[in-house]
Formats: sequence, structure tokens, C-alpha cells
Amino acid sequence: MYRLNLRTAQTVEFTDITGEVQHIVEASGVKDGICHIYIPHTTAGVTVNEHADPSVVKDICMALERIVSRKDNYRHSEGNSPAHIKASLFGSSQTVFIEKGKLVLGTWQGIFFCEFDGPRDRTVLVKAMSG
Amino acid sequence: MYRLNLRTAQTVEFTDITGEVQHIVEASGVKDGICHIYIPHTTAGVTVNEHADPSVVKDICMALERIVSRKDNYRHSEGNSPAHIKASLFGSSQTVFIEKGKLVLGTWQGIFFCEFDGPRDRTVLVKAMSG
Amino acid sequence: MYRLNLRTAQTVEFTDITGEVQHIVEASGVKDGICHIYIPHTTAGVTVNEHADPSVVKDICMALERIVSRKDNYRHSEGNSPAHIKASLFGSSQTVFIEKGKLVLGTWQGIFFCEFDGPRDRTVLVKAMSG
Repeated sequence: MYRLNLRTAQTVEFTDITGEVQHIVEASGVKDGICHIYIPHTTAGVTVNEHADPSVVKDICMALERIVSRKDNYRHSEGNSPAHIKASLFGSSQTVFIEKGKLVLGTWQGIFFCEFDGPRDRTVLVKAMSG
Repeated sequence: MYRLNLRTAQTVEFTDITGEVQHIVEASGVKDGICHIYIPHTTAGVTVNEHADPSVVKDICMALERIVSRKDNYRHSEGNSPAHIKASLFGSSQTVFIEKGKLVLGTWQGIFFCEFDGPRDRTVLVKAMSG
Repeated sequence: MYRLNLRTAQTVEFTDITGEVQHIVEASGVKDGICHIYIPHTTAGVTVNEHADPSVVKDICMALERIVSRKDNYRHSEGNSPAHIKASLFGSSQTVFIEKGKLVLGTWQGIFFCEFDGPRDRTVLVKAMSG
């Protein structure tokens, strides 16, 4: 299990971690199998989406702002309930296939750490398994 | 593969199953690997989110009520289409890492069974895999 | 790793791929383990939901139209930002358990490829792992 550390800069931002995850897969020595990505935070998530045009993830962030009300009768006293809700909508785990030592991603796909309550120091857990 | 049975009490409620899943991991004997959690129902889901403050999951349930209209021109005759929609938004599977025989969860993270159309008798499938 | 090719017919439609995935599991020879399903596209997803009544997935598609605004100040010039947003809400990977060579699905569950920006030629990646 590898730990990838990163520092986010904005309240809401998606960080492209594709290159780092690919390096971890290479370091693991796994040639064919599954790469598991896990976010050990409750106000952040992980997604796979387009990384060719950076405006795509900005549109996704904007849309999430519309979908999850910033103000409501939220009970959680820290005031970051919208971030918790976004985290559950996106999920804390994703899997990507590995073939010949490389992540099998679609032409436009990248892996993103999704910050919903930054800026913060964050960790991503990555594990490559043969199979 | 282990089957965890539970009985929900409300129409919408999140049940903290972290302890039960941890017991299954210990019973499996897996020291390092991945714990797969699967929900074999179409009106329930699974999520990982904060379990320190129980108001967080209440806020998530409330937000989902806002996001998914209770009434619309739904065609499904059973009247529980909002529960099916919530199930797909959250997903039926999540993975959590295992290290030294323990689930690797963030400080505030717990695993929740998400009931969207209760009360009902429900099952959660859990499998620990070495790797 | 198996590649399942399909052609979608509508802008938004869910294609039931349960039978194809079951055939792949049988071809793999895996008796007990996990079946990983991965979508290598940024405007499509995968979900597990009811396939007994086809009106359920139609209701899910309609609800997603309500949840994700078709028009907004989207920056992505291709005009398909709503499809990217839906893809991240549903996710690009799901896992299903395998027991005795069969997918372990709930009574009403089927596996769906979720087209959000069709019609297109699409691919689904499937891998069965023992464990």
C-alpha cells in the first residue's frame, strides 16, 4: 500500500493524480491486475474524468455547487456538510485496470483527487494487485 | 464471502456497519489486502463518511431528499423510484484497504449501509482478499 | 481482461449488460472472487440497479436530467458537460461478487452501461479475479 500526499489550494478543486498513480503501479511491479485508489477523508473523493480539457472538472465543480445547497438546515456544527455530501456522491474508492504495467485509461481519462473542503493536507491510498 | 444481515427501522437511514465489517476482516484472516463491500439491493447503497458526529449522515439524508424529487412523472409503479435513483448515485460497491488485519479508515471515517426504502430486512456482502 | 463492445442508440440510455458480464465470468473460469467492471469513457458510467421493470432506469435517466442542468455557464466547448457530470456522479467502476462461477446479484439487480452522450460505439472492460 502506497500513500500519496498532496496539498490542496482551494476550497473545491480537483487535482490530477494520474501520473503519480502510474508511478506507483510501476513501482509495485504489477503487470496485470487492478489498481485500487482510496481516499481516507470524509470531505474529499476520487473520480475518473476528462483531463485533456481542464474546463471539464471546473464545470463538474460548478455543477456540484448547484446540486448540493450551500445553506440549509444542516445540523453538523462544523458547517461543511455540503463537502460531506459531495464526498458520498462521488465515493471514496475507484478501481482502474492494469495491463502490461500500465493503467488502462480511456483516451481522455485521468484520475482526480476531489477536494471539497480545502485547502488541506491530504492523502490518497493506492494499491496494485495482480490478477 | 460473508453475509451481514440487518433490519432497518426508518424509510431513509444510514446504519454504521464499521464494527461488523472489521469483525469479518478479522475472521477472514486476511492481513493485507482489500475489503469489498457489496449491497445486493436496488433501493439501498453503501458509503464511507463521518461517523464521529451522527448529524453528518442526517444532513446527507436530508440533502438527498432535496436532490432527488419525491414526486415527478415517475413510471415505475411501486412508487419508490427516488430510492432507486439514490441507490445509483451512491453505488452498490465500495472497497476499503486492509493493513495488519485492520480496515484502513481515515480518522473520522465509518462504513454505512444506506437504506433508501425501508424499513426492511437487508443483507450486506463482505469479502476480504489478500494482496 | 475482456473487452465488451456495444453501440448505443440514444443520447441517454442504460444498456443491460448482465448477461454479457455473466458470460465473461464463465469464460474466465473464476469460481469464487470479484468481477470488476470498468468504463473507459468520460461521458458514460456503470451502475447496478433494477432490471425487472425497465421503467426504473428510465426514471433514473429522467431524474438525472433534473439534477444536472442542461444549460449553465459551462466552459467546456464541446457542450457535453452534463454528460461528464453524470459520469462522475455514477462512477466509472463497480465490483460484483462471484460465487460458484456466477455473479452474486440481488433478486432484482442487473448491471447497466450508462450512456450519457450517445449514440456512440462504446467499450466496457471486465476482469474476474479469484479470491
